[in-house]
Amino acid sequence: MNINISDESCPLRKTLEIIGGKWTMLIIFQINERTIRYGELKRCIVGISEKMLISQLKFLCDKGFVHKKSFAEIPPKVEYTLTDMGKELLPLINQIIQFGINHKF
Amino acid sequence: MNINISDESCPLRKTLEIIGGKWTMLIIFQINERTIRYGELKRCIVGISEKMLISQLKFLCDKGFVHKKSFAEIPPKVEYTLTDMGKELLPLINQIIQFGINHKF
Repeated sequence: MNINISDESCPLRKTLEIIGGKWTMLIIFQINERTIRYGELKRCIVGISEKMLISQLKFLCDKGFVHKKSFAEIPPKVEYTLTDMGKELLPLINQIIQFGINHKF
Repeated sequence: MNINISDESCPLRKTLEIIGGKWTMLIIFQINERTIRYGELKRCIVGISEKMLISQLKFLCDKGFVHKKSFAEIPPKVEYTLTDMGKELLPLINQIIQFGINHKF
């Protein structure tokens, strides 16, 4: 297959922009099949800063991998779920984790 | 599963270091099942600099994904192949490319 990663529409490049980041993949993996509130998600992802989590969630929502639902409550309540496209990444992420478990490198 | 990506031994983090990079994945994909000479590999990967290709190949050799064979000839001849572990990444890379082909984002 001819892959030109310098081309913005390259399918490998596009997908790497989503799954190649340290945090995006982990956020998708932690949301997984559940509906999760912002605070709980933050607690699940050790070491992520508030600023990074918010910006990565916005990126994933904009790209259509994560759905955000805000409730008009005080204090504000925000919930995240994966979209169908986001859920399709889960088997891929599981394989990536499995590869890391199975191999020493 | 509990994943702590701040931990250096985290299987997701480890594997992302290999496949998360823009170039590493593409280099592995281009070598694929063949034995390829340095010059040919360079031509296959549009946009990569000499310095980047050499450093990424060294990284992949050090990690055990790529095997380098040097011939004592003039001009020097260097060939690259994937190790068994490197080849195990190919189905994963194919799925990642397929995901990018199948989805608009």
